[in-house]
Order: sequence, then structure tokens, then C-alpha cells
Amino acid sequence: MKVQTTRTFRVKSIDVKFTQATIILNEEDALQLGIGNGSIVLITIGNKQHTAIALTSKTITERGECILPVELVYKLGLSDGDIVGVKPVGLPSSFSALKKRLKGEKLTEVEFMGLIRDIVNGIYGEAEIAAFLVSQLYNPLTDQELSYLVKAMVETGVKVKFEETTYDVHSIGGVPGNSKVALLTVPIVAAAGLLIPKTSSRAITSPAGTADTMEVLARVDLTVDEIVEIARKTKGTLAWGGRLNLAPADDIFVNIERKLAIDPEQQMVASILSKKLAMGVEKLVIDIPVGRGAKVQDLSKAEELASIFIRQGSLLNISIKVAITYGGQPIGTSVGPALEAREALKAHVEKRGSKSLIDKALMLAGLILEMSGKAQPGAGVEIAREIFLSGRAYDKFKEIIAAQGGNPEIKPEEVPVGRYSYTLKSPIEGAVTHIDNTAVNLIARALGAPFDKGAGVEFHAKIGYRVAKGDPLLTLYSNSEARLDEALALLSELKPIVVEGMLIKTIP
Amino acid sequence: MKVQTTRTFRVKSIDVKFTQATIILNEEDALQLGIGNGSIVLITIGNKQHTAIALTSKTITERGECILPVELVYKLGLSDGDIVGVKPVGLPSSFSALKKRLKGEKLTEVEFMGLIRDIVNGIYGEAEIAAFLVSQLYNPLTDQELSYLVKAMVETGVKVKFEETTYDVHSIGGVPGNSKVALLTVPIVAAAGLLIPKTSSRAITSPAGTADTMEVLARVDLTVDEIVEIARKTKGTLAWGGRLNLAPADDIFVNIERKLAIDPEQQMVASILSKKLAMGVEKLVIDIPVGRGAKVQDLSKAEELASIFIRQGSLLNISIKVAITYGGQPIGTSVGPALEAREALKAHVEKRGSKSLIDKALMLAGLILEMSGKAQPGAGVEIAREIFLSGRAYDKFKEIIAAQGGNPEIKPEEVPVGRYSYTLKSPIEGAVTHIDNTAVNLIARALGAPFDKGAGVEFHAKIGYRVAKGDPLLTLYSNSEARLDEALALLSELKPIVVEGMLIKTIP
Repeated sequence: MKVQTTRTFRVKSIDVKFTQATIILNEEDALQLGIGNGSIVLITIGNKQHTAIALTSKTITERGECILPVELVYKLGLSDGDIVGVKPVGLPSSFSALKKRLKGEKLTEVEFMGLIRDIVNGIYGEAEIAAFLVSQLYNPLTDQELSYLVKAMVETGVKVKFEETTYDVHSIGGVPGNSKVALLTVPIVAAAGLLIPKTSSRAITSPAGTADTMEVLARVDLTVDEIVEIARKTKGTLAWGGRLNLAPADDIFVNIERKLAIDPEQQMVASILSKKLAMGVEKLVIDIPVGRGAKVQDLSKAEELASIFIRQGSLLNISIKVAITYGGQPIGTSVGPALEAREALKAHVEKRGSKSLIDKALMLAGLILEMSGKAQPGAGVEIAREIFLSGRAYDKFKEIIAAQGGNPEIKPEEVPVGRYSYTLKSPIEGAVTHIDNTAVNLIARALGAPFDKGAGVEFHAKIGYRVAKGDPLLTLYSNSEARLDEALALLSELKPIVVEGMLIKTIP
Repeated sequence: MKVQTTRTFRVKSIDVKFTQATIILNEEDALQLGIGNGSIVLITIGNKQHTAIALTSKTITERGECILPVELVYKLGLSDGDIVGVKPVGLPSSFSALKKRLKGEKLTEVEFMGLIRDIVNGIYGEAEIAAFLVSQLYNPLTDQELSYLVKAMVETGVKVKFEETTYDVHSIGGVPGNSKVALLTVPIVAAAGLLIPKTSSRAITSPAGTADTMEVLARVDLTVDEIVEIARKTKGTLAWGGRLNLAPADDIFVNIERKLAIDPEQQMVASILSKKLAMGVEKLVIDIPVGRGAKVQDLSKAEELASIFIRQGSLLNISIKVAITYGGQPIGTSVGPALEAREALKAHVEKRGSKSLIDKALMLAGLILEMSGKAQPGAGVEIAREIFLSGRAYDKFKEIIAAQGGNPEIKPEEVPVGRYSYTLKSPIEGAVTHIDNTAVNLIARALGAPFDKGAGVEFHAKIGYRVAKGDPLLTLYSNSEARLDEALALLSELKPIVVEGMLIKTIP
């Protein structure tokens, strides 16, 4: 019904990074197109099209000319002087689905597909996406709806399909020191002959993600083709999933969730499962750490979350096992990319390490072995331990490091850590009674992790350890002296480690 | 705790209108400031400051230079080459209030003030504002919270204070043809000697707002100083409230509500009351039209909304009377700025007009007269009628038109309407049984209203009128032949007026 003419414009590029796809038009041209500042337009080139937000200018764009950021020019395969069509976009057809959602009505599979496709195509701004996410805080999706959401997120991105059964393990995170666990689990599983092409994220609010930690030892910014090639050869990868365009809607959602500091439970499930399904994963172990300062604070919440995963597993045809694990203090003895990479490597070399690290890695690997039938129920851990102790896991890890372009022969002590350090000593004799996850994360971030790979915290004692007065409790590392000072201030303010003795006070 | 240095940059302006305050920095400078694309920064000039979203460029900005849009340069009183300070902004302190809101906790007066101030200062993006609004769909504010919100919206904008008691009337709208009512009510009230400095909005989704309609006869884009000056002289104004910076948070909220097609009830109350309180209004009549196709569809909803207004009135110390009025079909016989301006003017000249228009205008004016004590309870309408019939209201209207720069002697027939027209005739003998508000709004918009002032719909018959076959039912007007064609298609599709006869069908 609407009179909507496409007009053509000559492309001129501008070297500015915008936060969303942008086109700058001459004010008069915009008026003739019937659009204003901030309107959404459709740019067409042949049969390709892309939406963008229109800005206007009286002078920097001539009539008949449009200015596009270089990134968009490149993405659309254009050059300066090329001609593109531009027309105003009315309300997208999926808008009715968003309206239904905000009215508390249920959406169909087709409606989710339309909504997510338009989100991925950049037709919606932050307001609409925030509305969709915030509605979930109050009005959760049904199981059926959640499965439609996940499917739509998978279908609107790149999909990988391997010839053999594909396994994966994923921790919902939140516990410091956890990023290194996969550096043991993945090689063990791959060494058992199972395909585990793991992709993981970089840290968002934590000091290290598995991708940050693996990056200390090898390249992680692999393409999809590289991952497929390496996984076929080595059975395992430890890659960064960020730019692979797997379930790209997820990245858009995560960006808004971060802005709003919200993390709707169902959206977290959708985020994890969509990425895994896009990678062709068929059997998946989910690790939910529970404890003070972890993402999930109590067991009943963890069980609730686990049951959402299990129900989605059957709706989405992916076999899922959930491990609820202890997350009340850091995993292992280190927090931060280089320190954690070193700790994982040391465990491989020495075939031993911190109990919390080794037990967790073997348990998760064991669960996968049981799912595959390589181990009888209950016997997975022992087979995993055998693979770990025999050195087959380390051999596999070296193979993966080499395949991802790293030096497989690197020794733990060769991994460089922060050049400035400070060791905190126990002021009294006693026992460590508390390590505060949140404080540890904040201090490691203050030290520069994850961007400064060498920054982080190393623990010399953990909960339950007995210490003498003057014994080292932890060491802070950073490559910036200023950041070390900053972290020291936080250290005395937040008291991340608590030693308690029998003697409480003396009266003079 | 954070290391945050302010760096200085040389200002260069760029003639592009952005959708929010923007600064473009050289990528290297951004890195040194520790900010990325899309980060929020604080720009400081002496003791003034403003937040902006940072974009980055490798080449179009030199090191040490920042590019600001001309509007922002002007707003900050800068010139090219001036030096400003720029520093990253961490999470705004009011962010904790937003988080509390999303967790379902109540906010204090201080928290609302901080949140609204940061919204007005442009510190939040659309995601955060959408989250605040969407949360209200599910978790309404308490009365106390709503009053804090209104106060914060008033305090963060321009405030006007007159020396004498200030009256106003406001319709929540939604019914076609309603925009002209104030062109009768305001002059009647002002002619009675009461101060009624009315500001109103332009149409957002309807074919005409009071500001659009008054603009056919006079200037409405007055400054605050002009409104105050005119109101002191004539007692009444009919101005546009859009650019006066009265409760500017409201404009920000409305923009996002439109994008999401939501209209949280409490936010509507906050919107109206904040604008009125900012204009210093102490006694206010609210008109809630009820009926099929109006904003409020049934009486119980209207009563609920009325009670929110009444409760806020006592919390905010503004005296409020609510009139629930019939809104099941258009008010008067015309819809669209010029047609409605003509109808209002004609009513003034002839001292009569469509019953729905005259009754409504007199009733609303009467309520104000009663609130002021100029009329005894129940006697307001008669005094209003006397002022209207005596011509004192028309004299006052002419005075207001002249004060606002219009021609007070203009005759109704001199008001230009659309040059293309089409008259729909009744296909049968019968009675008009239904006029569809929504269809009328859509058709008037399709004809070009409110931007094409002459576009709109004129009714020759309304509900209950008896018509012969071939009698005219309505006439469409537009200044665009293409738009008239478009509207004709809609007319046959939507059937905005229904005539029913006794005879339903004949068998051959």
C-alpha cells in the first residue's frame, strides 16, 4: 500500500567505525525518500541487500551520493563510485512477533525464525532487542518456545556438519581459574579417539576465557574451514568461537545483556546450545559450577538450570549430561591466561597438579567417554585418568598446539608471566577459611587480565590449607606497575583470602 | 580505583546529524584512553560536561583531534580548534538503580532522580531505556515510585512558574477529530479570565495533534519566553510543546515507546503530568475518550486510568479532574489539520457546530470553570456556553491567533484544504451504524495528514444519521493525487463507514 521508491546513490566510503551499519545521506535526498535521521533503510546491490541506519548531512554528502563506513563497503563488496539502491524500510514483518511477545502471547516456530532473522540482519536496534530480552526476565519462554528460539539462532548462521559423532563440553563459567580445565579435558577426549572440535569464548567479565588461555600457547582465531580441517586430523580443537558466525544472534544478545547487566537463564541456555548445535555437536556435557561467587549460588538453582538443559536436549535432539560441580573457590592454583596455560601445561608434563583441576578435568572427560560408550557407566573417570597419566593426553595436546600454529615443545616455565609481582604473606598462623571468587576476579581484571596475558593471581594456599605466619598466600602478576598498584589497593580492600587462627585477640 | 586520565583534544566539527551525541576519535588515542568503539566518554569544557558515544577512525581524525557533530559543537558553545577534555565513563552511578528495577526492587526518590538525570544527559543508550520501559509492562511502579518518576522528569528540564493559578486541559487522545476541541476550550477558559497556557504535541501516529491543527491558523513553535509573554497578555496559548525542553526525558521515552509500539499506562500518566507540572499547571482536567478504536476501549480501563491520575494528583500536589468521554466515533465532522481548523473556526463564527464537538468543548471548559470557582459545581457548562455563544470565546481565539502571529480575521472558507478530493456516496438507503476510528485514522494518514495540512476526511453523516441512496457519506482530501489513490484503495478495503438498511438481500 505504501509508496516506496528505491533511489540510487553513488557510494563514497568513510573510515569511521560505527556501532551499527550506517549510511549518511544528503538531507534533501533523505527528505525525498521520506526518511528522517535515524530511519532504517534497505541498501540493495544486485540481489544482495543490507539494512542500515540513516544519518543526514547538509554538506558532507552531495545530492545523489551516500557515505558508507569502510567496513560496510567491504562487507558488501563495493568500491567508491559504485551505485547502490536505497529505500526506506517500513515495520519489519517480524515486528508483530515482538509485539505478541510483549503482550505475553506465545510465538510459533515461524515467528521466532522471522524475528531472529531480522535481528541478525540488523533490522532492529538496541531497543527492540533489549525489549525481547527483558521480557524474558518476567515472562519466561515455554520449553517449546525456547527450542524454537535455539533453532532459529542456529539456522541464521553458519552450520558445520562432521561425518562422525561430535562431542563437546561446556562450562557455564563464573569461577576463577576454570578456563584451563578444557586444556586437559579436550586432549583426553580426543586422545580416546572421539571428535571434540571445541570452540569457546573470550572472557567477557572474567579474567580469562578458554580462548584467552589457549591463545597463550597457539592461535585460536581459526576459520571454520581450519577448525574442520584440524578437527579431522587431530580429533580436537581449542579455538575461539567469536568470529565464526555460528549462531550470530547470540553475539547480538550477549552485547545487550552486558549493557543491561542481565543474564536471563533461558537466554543463557539458548546461547550455549545454539553455538553447539551450529558446530554439529550431538553429545554434550554441561558443567554448572555452584558456590558462593559462582554464577549459580545454590544447588536448587543449579538443578533447575540443569533440568532446562535436559528438556531442551530432548526437544532439540542433542544428548546432554549435566555435571553440577563445586565452584566455591578458584579451580586449581592460578587465575589469568598465562598463569592458567602454564598450570595446565605443567599438569600435562608432570601428570599431576592441583586436585580441584585434575579431578574436574578427569570427571568431565569421563562423562564424555561414558556417553560415547568408550567407558561403562561409572568407569569414565578411570579411563580418563589412564589416558592422562599415560601421557597420551599430553601428546594429543601437543598435536593440537602444533595444528593451531603454536610451539608444541614449550615448557611450562617458558610461558611468560607478568614482569611485576607482589606476594601476599599470611599475617598469622592458622588455616585458610575463605577465598572470595568475586574479589579474585576483580583483582585479576585490575591487574590487566585477560588483555594482559601475563596478568593474574597465583595461589600458594587454598581453603583448608594450614599456613604459618609469613607463609606466602598468593602472588599478583602484571606487566603494568600502575595496574599492580591498583590491584594492591583492591587486595587490601577486598581481602580475597582469609586466614583464621585459634587466637582471636590478646588483651595487653 | 580506576586509572582514568582526562586527555585533551582539538575540536573539528562535522556536518552530520547523529541519533545521539557522538565523538569520533583516532583509533590510537581511543586505545590510549582505554576505550573501544561504542564506549561512552565524558567531554569537559571548563566546568561544563556532556557525555557522548565514541566512534573510532584510523584516518579521518588525526592524533589529538576529535570530531564532533555541528549540533553538539553548537550546544557546547565551541568552535573548531577549541580544546576539550575527554575521558572514559565507567558505569554511571545510576546504573545500580536500573539493575534494582530489573530485579523487581523498589527505587527511592534519589534513585529516580539519578536515573532520569543520566537518561536526559544521554548517558544511556536505547537498550537501557527500553529495559526501563519494558519492565513497567510486567512490574508496574508503585504510586509513590510513579510520583518520584514524574518529579524527576520535571526537575531535569525547563520549569515555568506563573504568578497566578495556572489551568490546563489535556486529552489522552486516540479519537480522530479530537485535535480541534482545544481550539474551543482554551479560548472559552481564557475568556473567563483564567490562565491556560496550553502546550500540546504534534500527531505521532494520529492524523492531527492540536499543535498541527492550530498551526494552520498561527505559529505554534513558540519559545518558552514567548509562551509566557503571550499567556500573560491573552491568558491563553495554543503552542507546540515539542522543543521547549519541558520534561525532556519524556521525549526520550516516547521515542523508544514508538519503536516498540508499547504504551505503558503509568508512563503515559508520567508523560502528561511531567509536561504539565513543568509548565506550572496547578489545576488540570484530563479527558479520557472511551470506545471502540479509541486508546481506551472500555469503561473499567478508563476508570482504572482515572484513578491513577487522581492518586498522582494528590501525591504531586496538582488538582486533577478526569472526564471520561464518548470516543466511539470521530469528534465533530472532520479529521486532519486544515479541515479541523476550519471546523473549529466555523463553530466560533457561527456559534454552533457538530454536537459532539460543541458539547465536549463546553463540558471540558465547564469543568475548569468549576475548579476555579468561577462556576458552582454543575453550572460550569452553562457559563462556558454563555461565553461561547456571546462571541467572547471567538474574540479571545482571534486574540490568541494574532498573538501567535496568525491572521485573526481569516474566514473558515479561506482555510485551504486538499486540492484533490473524492466523495463517497451511500450505496443504499438506511442508517449509519458504524464509523471505525482506526480505519479513519489510517485513511487520513494515507491521504498525507498531518504533514500535508490539507489532507483529511470530512464526514457528511455520522452514527445514527439516516441517508438516502446516493447521499454523500464522506469526502477525502489530499494535495497528492497518488496519495488520494492510495487512500481510495484503503477506503474500499477498510470500510470506515457502514450504512445498514432494512432490506438485506433480494432473491431474483
